[in-house]
Amino acid sequence: MRRSKLFIKTLKEAPTDEVAKNAQLLIRAGYIHKEMAGVYVYTTLGLRVLEKIKQIIREEMDAAGGNEVMMTVLQPRELWEKTDRWDDRKVDNWFKSKLVSGSEVGIGLTHEEPIVDMMASYVSSYKDLPISIYQIQSKFRNEKRAKSGLLRGREFVMKDMYTLAKNQAEHDEIYEKIAAAYHRVYERLGIGDITFRVKADGGIFTSRYSDEFQMISSIGEDTLFHVPDTDIYINEEVASSLAPEHIQPADRIAMTEQHTPGVKGVGKLAEMLGVPIERTVKTMLYRLDDKLTAVAVRGDYDVNEIKLRLATGVKKIELADEVSIREATGAEVGYAGLINLPDEVDIIIDDSVEPLVNFELGANRTDYHNINVNWDVDLARPEKFYDIKQAKLGDIHPETGKVYEVVRGVEVGNIFPLETKYTDALGVYYSDQSGKKQSIIMGCYGIGVSRVMGVLAEDFSDDKGLIWDKSIAPYSVYLVSIGEKGSEVADRLYTELTQAGIEVLYDDRDERPGKKFADAELMGIPYRLTVSDRGVEAGEYELVDRKSGETKNLTAEQLIDTLKISVNS
Amino acid sequence: MRRSKLFIKTLKEAPTDEVAKNAQLLIRAGYIHKEMAGVYVYTTLGLRVLEKIKQIIREEMDAAGGNEVMMTVLQPRELWEKTDRWDDRKVDNWFKSKLVSGSEVGIGLTHEEPIVDMMASYVSSYKDLPISIYQIQSKFRNEKRAKSGLLRGREFVMKDMYTLAKNQAEHDEIYEKIAAAYHRVYERLGIGDITFRVKADGGIFTSRYSDEFQMISSIGEDTLFHVPDTDIYINEEVASSLAPEHIQPADRIAMTEQHTPGVKGVGKLAEMLGVPIERTVKTMLYRLDDKLTAVAVRGDYDVNEIKLRLATGVKKIELADEVSIREATGAEVGYAGLINLPDEVDIIIDDSVEPLVNFELGANRTDYHNINVNWDVDLARPEKFYDIKQAKLGDIHPETGKVYEVVRGVEVGNIFPLETKYTDALGVYYSDQSGKKQSIIMGCYGIGVSRVMGVLAEDFSDDKGLIWDKSIAPYSVYLVSIGEKGSEVADRLYTELTQAGIEVLYDDRDERPGKKFADAELMGIPYRLTVSDRGVEAGEYELVDRKSGETKNLTAEQLIDTLKISVNS
Repeated sequence: MRRSKLFIKTLKEAPTDEVAKNAQLLIRAGYIHKEMAGVYVYTTLGLRVLEKIKQIIREEMDAAGGNEVMMTVLQPRELWEKTDRWDDRKVDNWFKSKLVSGSEVGIGLTHEEPIVDMMASYVSSYKDLPISIYQIQSKFRNEKRAKSGLLRGREFVMKDMYTLAKNQAEHDEIYEKIAAAYHRVYERLGIGDITFRVKADGGIFTSRYSDEFQMISSIGEDTLFHVPDTDIYINEEVASSLAPEHIQPADRIAMTEQHTPGVKGVGKLAEMLGVPIERTVKTMLYRLDDKLTAVAVRGDYDVNEIKLRLATGVKKIELADEVSIREATGAEVGYAGLINLPDEVDIIIDDSVEPLVNFELGANRTDYHNINVNWDVDLARPEKFYDIKQAKLGDIHPETGKVYEVVRGVEVGNIFPLETKYTDALGVYYSDQSGKKQSIIMGCYGIGVSRVMGVLAEDFSDDKGLIWDKSIAPYSVYLVSIGEKGSEVADRLYTELTQAGIEVLYDDRDERPGKKFADAELMGIPYRLTVSDRGVEAGEYELVDRKSGETKNLTAEQLIDTLKISVNS
Repeated sequence: MRRSKLFIKTLKEAPTDEVAKNAQLLIRAGYIHKEMAGVYVYTTLGLRVLEKIKQIIREEMDAAGGNEVMMTVLQPRELWEKTDRWDDRKVDNWFKSKLVSGSEVGIGLTHEEPIVDMMASYVSSYKDLPISIYQIQSKFRNEKRAKSGLLRGREFVMKDMYTLAKNQAEHDEIYEKIAAAYHRVYERLGIGDITFRVKADGGIFTSRYSDEFQMISSIGEDTLFHVPDTDIYINEEVASSLAPEHIQPADRIAMTEQHTPGVKGVGKLAEMLGVPIERTVKTMLYRLDDKLTAVAVRGDYDVNEIKLRLATGVKKIELADEVSIREATGAEVGYAGLINLPDEVDIIIDDSVEPLVNFELGANRTDYHNINVNWDVDLARPEKFYDIKQAKLGDIHPETGKVYEVVRGVEVGNIFPLETKYTDALGVYYSDQSGKKQSIIMGCYGIGVSRVMGVLAEDFSDDKGLIWDKSIAPYSVYLVSIGEKGSEVADRLYTELTQAGIEVLYDDRDERPGKKFADAELMGIPYRLTVSDRGVEAGEYELVDRKSGETKNLTAEQLIDTLKISVNS
C-alpha cells in the first residue's frame, strides 16, 4: 500500500479525553479513531492488525474442530428471560432497544442463550455430539465508565467458542484440547513465553474453577500467585495458601479479658494489647445461604469470599446485618469472637488460626477483647480448619510447600466450564444410546480480540511509538524513499517486495525524511527500509529493525532474501 | 470438512412463520437459522458463502483503490442531529438505546455521518484527496415488517464505500471506476450477463440520477424499462417516456360541458362520455414547494412524482388539500380541469396531452366535464410540455425512438452521488492550492452482501434445493461414501482432494445413500462425488454436476484433474 493512497495521517495528539495509553498510541499512530468513550473505529491499519489476530485465532479454533458461525446482534427478550439474564437487576450492562411493534430487543452482549437455543434444531441424538461452535464478532456492554481504551470497551470484538458434550469426560477432553489451542494462539501472537494458564473462579453456579490466560505484564490488572519453577499460576481470587510459620510461645498463659474501648483496626488493637498481629484473630459474621456463620482468620489476613464459597459449597454469601450480629454476640459490631456463640451459629475457621498459642480474640462483649486464648483450653478445636484467607506475599503454596512468587498479569483469554446451566434452562437435551434423555455439558472459551490488540499495543511500545510483532503488524516493511533517484528505485523495490509476498507500506509522499522515519516508528512497523539517493549510488539500502534497533546495509538481492526469511520466521 | 464434525443438519421444514422462499430454502439446507423476523444466524455453511461474497467484493474494492475500515455500531446522537437524521420523524427506522448515563445512542443504520466526521482528523489539504473508504459490516434497520428473508432484514450485512473528491470531474472519474468494479463483482458472482446498471432516482437533495445494479429475474421487485439492443436500463421511477402515437380526429368539434354526476374513475367517465380513454385528461392539484400547481397527464397515465420533481427542480411535492382545490377550481374534488384556473395556479402538462384533438377535461364545476376541448381554441397551448408521466408498457424511449421492453429486476447494488450534502453539513472542507476553503464532493456505493446471498439462493434453485455458483459455494464437492470399501477409499480421496486445494464437504456419516444425495442437492454443492463399493471395484467414481445434472464416471486421477480445472474455471 502506498501512503499516498492510504487516507490515514499520524496525529500529534490523541483526543484530550482519552486517558488509556493503548488508545492514545493507537489513535496517534492512525490505527483507531474514537467515536465515543469505549467505542472505536478501526482504520485500514487497525483493521489489518485486528484481522491478523482474528485469523490466527480462527485457524487454531478450526484446527481444534471448531465450526465458525455468525450470531445476531439483535436478541429477543423472551429467550433471555428463560435463563433470568434479561432483567436489568440481574444483568446491568445490556444495551436494549425496541422493535416498531414495541417488543424489546437486546443488543448482543454475549451469546450462550442463542447458541443453545439454536442447538434445538440440530441436536437430538448422542450421534450429534460433541459440537464445537465459535464466533468472532462485535459485542456490546453498557459500561458505566469506559476509560481503558481497547482493554474494556462498550463495543469490542470477541472470539467466543461454545462446546457441547455428552458427559463430563468428553467435556474435559475438549476443554483441554481448546486450552492447548489457546497456547498455540499466544505462541503465534509472539507472547507464548509470557502467557500462562491461570486457575480462577468458575462463578457461582459451579464448584469447578475456570482458567484464565494471563500475560505477565507491568500493565497487569490482576495479581497472580506463581509457584516458582512450575507452570502453576493462580489468580489471587482463588489462590490456596498456607501462612508461613511463626514461632509460637512455648507456654500457655491463662486467658484474660481486656478493656479495649474504641480501638479501631487490628493493627492498633495488637499494639495496645502487646500481642503480635500474627497472634490476633479476626471474626466476621456472615450469612452463608442465609445461615448465620462466624468466619475467623488470623488478624493479618482478610476473608476471601470466593474461597469461602468454594470451601463451603454455598451459593450466597453476605455479611450479617448489625441486628443479627448484636443478637448473636451480645455485643456491638467489632467485638465478635468465637467463645460462647449461640449453638445455632456455625463456625468456619481459617487454618492460619490453627497453630496459634496465646492468641487474641473478640470477647463477644462490647469494648472487650480476650488475650491468651488457647485451643482445647478456652475453646474447642474444630474438627476441620479451612483455607478461606486472601493469599498474600510470603504465603506458601500448600501442595508444593513453595513460597509463592507474586506477579501482575493482564487477561488475554479465559475458558469456563458452564456445566448444564444453559442447556438445562433452555431445555436442550440429547437421547443416549438407550433412548434416555440426558443433559448436555457445556463449556465456553473467550478471547477478547480487540482487548488483545490493546494489550499488545500498550505493552509493546516505547517513547517513539508502537512495536508490533511480525505476526500481526499491518505491514512488515515501512519503505521510505528519499530523493529523486531514491524514489525511482523505491518504486521498483516496492513492486518487487510486494510480488515476493512481503507486505510493504510505501511512504511515497513528498515529505521530509525525518517525518517519514517518525511515522515508521510511531506506527511500529517491524522493518524500516530506506532508499535514498546516496544509497542508490552505493547500491545499498538501510534496513532497521524496529524492536532491536539493529541496522543493516544490504544490496537489493540480500534485502529480499533477508526480508523473506525474517518475515516468515 | 467432514459432515460428522459439522453441527448442521438439513431440516424437513422451515419455521412455519417464514414466508420468504430464500429464507425457507436456506434454513432447510442449514445455511441460516432464524433468530427473529428479519434477523438470521449464519451457520458454518452460510458464513462460508457470505465470506466468499465479501471477499470478491473486497478484492474489487481494493483494486479500485478502497481503504477498508470498520465503523462502529454504536452511534452518538449528537452527530446525527447535525444532519437532521436523528429525529424519528425524519428517519423512522433507527434502533435506539441509551448509555447508563442516559445519553441516547443509535444502532448503526448507515455510516455517512461518522465517516465524514472522522475525515476531519485526516483531511485538510487538497493533497489528502481523493479518498475511497469502505466497510463490510452488519447494519440495522427497524423495519415494520420483515418478511423477505435475507432480501430485506432488520440486521443485514452491507458493503458501503464512500468517496471524497476535490471537484466534480474527480468525483465523476471515481464514480465510473467504481461502477466498473461493480460489474467485475457481478461477473465473479456468476451473474455478470444478467446484471445491468440502471438509471434511478438520486433522491431529493440532488438533481443527479443514482445508479442501481439490477439482476434481471422473475423474482424481481422492480420494474425496469430496457431499450432493446442496448445496455440502457431505467428504473420505472425515472423512465423517460413518449406515449405511442394515436390517430386523432381530423376535425375539431366545439367544446361542450357534460353533466357527469357521481362518475368515479377515468375508465367509467370515458365510457359514459363516449371518448376513448387516450383522449381524456387527468388534472391533479399539487403543491410544488408550496406553490399550487395543476398537473395534467393523459387519462391512461399517472403522474410520476419523482419525474415531476426532477422536471421542475422543486424539493417538496404534495397533493393539494381539499380546501385549496375547492377554492382554486370552484368545484368539489374530482372535477379539476385546465380552463379558467386562477392566475396564481401554475400549470404543468405532460407531453402525452400535446397531440390530443377533441379531448376531455374536468370542467372546474362540480358534476361536470368538458368534451371536445382543443388547444388554441378552448385553452392556450403552454410554452412547454413536460415528461412527468409514469412510463408503461408500449411507451417509447424518447432518445432512441425505440419501444421499451419491460423487465423485472432485483437490486443487487447501488451507487449514489451525495454531492456536498454531508461534508458541508458536518463542516469538513479542504484547502485548495491557493489556500482557499473548498467543499468536498462525496459519493456512496452500496452492495447488500446478505441480500445478494438471498437473491442468489432464491433465483438459483430448483425443487431439490439450492444451486450455488462455484465462486461462492461453501464447498466445491460433496463427497458421498457408500459401503465399507467405499468409505475407505473416500477417506483417502478426501485427503487427496483437500491437499489439491479443492474444498470438500465429506458426508462420512452412517446414513442411507438417498439421504446423502438429497442433502447434497438441497445444499446446492456444485459437484457430488460418489464413492461406492461397486465404484471401488470398477475403479471409477461418479461425479454429478448439480446445475446441469451431467454425470461422469472417472478414475481417481481423472477426477482430481477434472475438479482442479472445473473449480478454478
